[in-house]
Amino acid sequence: MNVNGIHFRSIWLHKSNPEIVQIIDQRNLPHEFNIEDLTTVDDVISAIRDMHVRGAGLIGAAAGFGMYLAALEAVSKSDPYKYVMQAGLKLKTARPTAINLAAAVERQLNSLSNNLTVKQMISYTLNIAQAIADEDAQACYQIGIHGLELINNIAKQNNGEVINILTHCNAGWLAFVDHGSATAPIYAAHDAGIRIHVWVDETRPRNQGARLTAWELEQHGVPFTIIPDNAGGHLMQHNLVDLVLVGSDRTTYTGDVANKIGTYLKALAAKDTHVPFYVALPSSTFDWNLHDGILQIPIEERGADEVKTIQGLAHNKLTTVLLTTPTSNASNFAFDITPSRLITGLITERGICEPNQDAIFKLFPEKHKLD
Amino acid sequence: MNVNGIHFRSIWLHKSNPEIVQIIDQRNLPHEFNIEDLTTVDDVISAIRDMHVRGAGLIGAAAGFGMYLAALEAVSKSDPYKYVMQAGLKLKTARPTAINLAAAVERQLNSLSNNLTVKQMISYTLNIAQAIADEDAQACYQIGIHGLELINNIAKQNNGEVINILTHCNAGWLAFVDHGSATAPIYAAHDAGIRIHVWVDETRPRNQGARLTAWELEQHGVPFTIIPDNAGGHLMQHNLVDLVLVGSDRTTYTGDVANKIGTYLKALAAKDTHVPFYVALPSSTFDWNLHDGILQIPIEERGADEVKTIQGLAHNKLTTVLLTTPTSNASNFAFDITPSRLITGLITERGICEPNQDAIFKLFPEKHKLD
Repeated sequence: MNVNGIHFRSIWLHKSNPEIVQIIDQRNLPHEFNIEDLTTVDDVISAIRDMHVRGAGLIGAAAGFGMYLAALEAVSKSDPYKYVMQAGLKLKTARPTAINLAAAVERQLNSLSNNLTVKQMISYTLNIAQAIADEDAQACYQIGIHGLELINNIAKQNNGEVINILTHCNAGWLAFVDHGSATAPIYAAHDAGIRIHVWVDETRPRNQGARLTAWELEQHGVPFTIIPDNAGGHLMQHNLVDLVLVGSDRTTYTGDVANKIGTYLKALAAKDTHVPFYVALPSSTFDWNLHDGILQIPIEERGADEVKTIQGLAHNKLTTVLLTTPTSNASNFAFDITPSRLITGLITERGICEPNQDAIFKLFPEKHKLD
Repeated sequence: MNVNGIHFRSIWLHKSNPEIVQIIDQRNLPHEFNIEDLTTVDDVISAIRDMHVRGAGLIGAAAGFGMYLAALEAVSKSDPYKYVMQAGLKLKTARPTAINLAAAVERQLNSLSNNLTVKQMISYTLNIAQAIADEDAQACYQIGIHGLELINNIAKQNNGEVINILTHCNAGWLAFVDHGSATAPIYAAHDAGIRIHVWVDETRPRNQGARLTAWELEQHGVPFTIIPDNAGGHLMQHNLVDLVLVGSDRTTYTGDVANKIGTYLKALAAKDTHVPFYVALPSSTFDWNLHDGILQIPIEERGADEVKTIQGLAHNKLTTVLLTTPTSNASNFAFDITPSRLITGLITERGICEPNQDAIFKLFPEKHKLD
């Protein structure tokens, strides 16, 4: 998508030096737009763990490129294959909840073997890294097409009134490689001339909504209003939300969704007020091995400082302020599970389906393991 | 309750000059503990509107004392009674949702008439202001006793395990005159030696939980953990909450509760996960004229700056930072409605009752208007 009118992906290979991977360092947005060079797999691990990059699709793409950087580094190692294998193991531990990270590493490792030359490993991992990124962008683009149809149908019932869409966290192009998952239908609808307005949950503690989604929408010219995470229920009670649209970091084949902490609360409010609640997700976020989100999906716990302090602009300088007493305890679960029973539908690159095993396998029959 | 070991109420008459009302200016807590002098009704209006004081009970008490300050000011006016009446009208508009504000002003105005001398008006308004404050403190104390019984029962079922209580916003002694509503049972249980731990919702946008409730609990030695407002659903899904305990800013006689924005979302999660959800409220928050919270209780909308900026400590200095782009829109509804169907019980100064008309009027029969 565009930044000040220039097209960017969220991750790409340096134009003149293909041994450098470039990302938008998302930590200081919307106040500063910084591009960062990653040249080692450790750079990638830090960038994922410390959230220079985040979001299911982008974590997967970054892991793909991380394995390519590991292969480049392997040139100088005594056992290049072993080095790349070990890099993969390290990479997988950077963040636990989104399945895209582990899946990208596995895909890279499955393409390699001890019989390959380092040069071949470099070439294979680069190809796969680029394929992961391209597939992610393409899947999000398709999600936009299917989601546009959904929004179009709501618009028809709404007699041309503005469609109010509530979203949580950033499931935008910054969370993927391009387009985004939950935002793809929003951009598509806006571009198609449908009048939409987005309620942007600020998404504490890291404020991905207020910082990233709002910035994305502003760059694209989509009308939006930032709201505290507490506000969605009130808005839905008063018919001020026509559609809730969120992303997913991991999805069971039964339709349970792990997404940013607080998503479950919005799903409950949507159910209680009869507002349609859709999850947009490229199928790369499906975990085909899990059937119970609450019991089986690991929920990342991050540091208390992300709750106790926050960064913003003071006198035009990035400043971190302490919000609590220094001695207060704080806890920081990063995701929660929205059970499938609260979800109206899943918007995937192959179309929209109900959040249940039968409907999901009907769209993705090749994933169905025979009993 | 105690601050550094010294007993404070949240509002009181200056010890040596009874023409001064003193409050704790809550805006800079927990970083700074400031006592502020109020000497005119306009001081009180600003203190309420700009939230130097907040919380249903304290707003009522402040309004009571505001009318006393208006009577003091009336000495120099040509028509003292008219001055006090007009001050009452102004005071009532300071904040719309909590009924205690209007109720306190009405109670003062009902005690006055054109036949009184200014001296009588001063004496009457002072007596009533002190009565409102004392009744509030006493009601909260009684809520503590009834709530302690409830917690005791949970403790018995829990085999001595720590009781985890989740609370939203600050329904602590800072929100009332003393003890607090939702915190009164917590303090009572802690003092009775029951092992409790409190999950404190930070309560965006003004962070009354992270700033005020956490500070109160820390001062009293009650173990607590601050959580983002998004986290409660996850904690309840994983059996980490035994009881949700919140306050009320206005309660219909049918049991609908207006409380800080986001309360409704926690009530939905509690219902979905079978966690008891109790609202602690002195009966002064009942609006005996309203039967439908969503349709009838006015919800205050505050400025966008409370969402877009936040104050904290940077290098030991109070600093306000901008969290969004300067051009982002933000909206700021201050309360939401929790329908009675989501509430397990109401803890009042007369005991605990179900949130329905019959049970409420059984506890408060004198309020029952005959059809």
